[in-house]
Amino acid sequence: MNSKLITTSDIEVILLRTGLEPLLDQLIERLREGFARLDMSTAMIPARTGIQYFKPDLGLLEWMPAAVGSGKATLKLVGYHPSNPVQRRLPTILSTLCVFDTTTGHLSGIMDGTFATALRTGAMSAIATDALAERKDSCLGIVGCGAQAVTQCHALSRVLPIRAIVAYDRDPLAAASFGKRIGFLGIPVKTVDASNLFTLLESADVLCTCTSEAPGNGPLFADFKNKPGLHINAVGSDFPNKFELPVDLLRRSFVCPDFRAQALVEGECQQLMPEAVTIDLSELLRAPDLQRSLRSELTVFDSTGHAYADYVAGLLFLEYAESMGLGTDVDLECAPPDPKDPYSFLNKPEFAEFTSRTADTTSH
Amino acid sequence: MNSKLITTSDIEVILLRTGLEPLLDQLIERLREGFARLDMSTAMIPARTGIQYFKPDLGLLEWMPAAVGSGKATLKLVGYHPSNPVQRRLPTILSTLCVFDTTTGHLSGIMDGTFATALRTGAMSAIATDALAERKDSCLGIVGCGAQAVTQCHALSRVLPIRAIVAYDRDPLAAASFGKRIGFLGIPVKTVDASNLFTLLESADVLCTCTSEAPGNGPLFADFKNKPGLHINAVGSDFPNKFELPVDLLRRSFVCPDFRAQALVEGECQQLMPEAVTIDLSELLRAPDLQRSLRSELTVFDSTGHAYADYVAGLLFLEYAESMGLGTDVDLECAPPDPKDPYSFLNKPEFAEFTSRTADTTSH
Repeated sequence: MNSKLITTSDIEVILLRTGLEPLLDQLIERLREGFARLDMSTAMIPARTGIQYFKPDLGLLEWMPAAVGSGKATLKLVGYHPSNPVQRRLPTILSTLCVFDTTTGHLSGIMDGTFATALRTGAMSAIATDALAERKDSCLGIVGCGAQAVTQCHALSRVLPIRAIVAYDRDPLAAASFGKRIGFLGIPVKTVDASNLFTLLESADVLCTCTSEAPGNGPLFADFKNKPGLHINAVGSDFPNKFELPVDLLRRSFVCPDFRAQALVEGECQQLMPEAVTIDLSELLRAPDLQRSLRSELTVFDSTGHAYADYVAGLLFLEYAESMGLGTDVDLECAPPDPKDPYSFLNKPEFAEFTSRTADTTSH
Repeated sequence: MNSKLITTSDIEVILLRTGLEPLLDQLIERLREGFARLDMSTAMIPARTGIQYFKPDLGLLEWMPAAVGSGKATLKLVGYHPSNPVQRRLPTILSTLCVFDTTTGHLSGIMDGTFATALRTGAMSAIATDALAERKDSCLGIVGCGAQAVTQCHALSRVLPIRAIVAYDRDPLAAASFGKRIGFLGIPVKTVDASNLFTLLESADVLCTCTSEAPGNGPLFADFKNKPGLHINAVGSDFPNKFELPVDLLRRSFVCPDFRAQALVEGECQQLMPEAVTIDLSELLRAPDLQRSLRSELTVFDSTGHAYADYVAGLLFLEYAESMGLGTDVDLECAPPDPKDPYSFLNKPEFAEFTSRTADTTSH
């Protein structure tokens, strides 16, 4: 059966024709509308599962399913290997998104998930920031200057006037290249070293933590004297015992996870009692009064990565691919002419003399 | 990054050049050796998970991961939709197998999993039958004449002299076409209707149940007076509350699951207390004396589908594809030139004037 393959070059063409920012803006709106409608009590979005290993390096393979009764389901396959960039010049996160037809179970599409993951992770922080941060000229603090930091800055710049970005990475090379990587935003960027990390934290109006800190090593910093109304997007926490923020800060904050059940296991929320986590992003988006009242408070968006965000992003790319006639049909799943005979795809004249299907069945 | 795509036509070529039976025999040997070595205490093979739904029809999507420290991991994606054959002329099971490099998380290969699933399910029953059934001219009983029944008969015929096959399906059309579908085996086939089901059961030396009975509807039949030394392969049980065999028969039997933890949740073993399930196929294969002593006893192989069988089958097909120069490279995962800049794959001269990456960042 034919599956539609959307390759990296198809993604390039979509971006080429649509423009990166119009696409990002559209993704932000789709995600905002989608999450405002999302009902996790009827959606089929179990917390992700996976396998992890420690040889040759720390690595994780995981799968993130999402179905919402639309006739389609998505499954994102994710590899998380933090040693990739330095040791192999590969992204920390490599990913593929599979799209299924829930009437037949047919894998109808396969596409890159790496770019969509970076973009949707930025877009999700933008939505949370738009809901929870004061709408004023803001200083954006960035801790962790890897790939995710680029889309964090970009997506936040679409919803918030940013007057300056102050960034820190414990790897001086990552910090040094960051200004160039986000130069296209036209926002002044300053990087600081470890001795000025607390100046960064204490001067930020909005903060994004997006590190690959190893499990057990967190938090990234001690509690600090935040500016009133600080909003934090904690992006790098996605593993049991892996977290970025100090628990004292979390206890002082209104903490809103993207995915409550998942965040309690592998997000910042694992440092809190479940009853302290009262609301998720979907519920927040349906509560404009609450959003307003929280803008002057210390707030944390605990972003663990939501499979429904992958679903929305994946279907958006697929929609563009379809409208542009992109993608390649590949006959991946073997659907034999007789569904009750798995060998019937071999019943072709040209196979008659080659397959030994009729040979040697009596020789034992 | 390039992933190797092994399509249906590549599988056809592999079968064309190798021969179906030599390949099946090789798969049986690889699985036998692999399972005899398999150590589930160190392997990373969690029981499968998935999502299930009841609209428009009963359906299930599930994923079956396996890694054994070899540098490769597999994830089989499975759709199980029992209304497919009758309503859509599609197989009940549609499947794809993904192969990952555990150093980088890279999806190195994607291949059809539908054919491999049918073949390995037959091969697994062959291994269990070879271990647990008496090596004598045997009457093989088949309950459920769908796609799996074809590979059950075929694989069993590779390890056991079969003098006759007696088959039953509650769908008369499936029963009527079965003889033709396995005609290539050269074994006499008789189909019976419901009134003669117990004659089938009571005359069988080896029995395979391979139905798509709905959860909650089992068992398929009441307990019966079995021939001494009957060996049963229960293949169709793979869902909570879905089982085929009567519990009284199970209690009289030595029951050996393929995957203990999974069988206790969704196999025949869910009808038993965990402590009644003492040994799995791997352990049985390492115990030749036990095999010998069990051949005269009533035995059941509880086949729920083992991800390690998919791993072995997938790597065998991949090995053939590589040696034959088959498969297509597709650039699926977007790995940008700068791993810390997800947009750097857009830094191509031809994109300069199209992507609006530098435009409109100050207009809000």
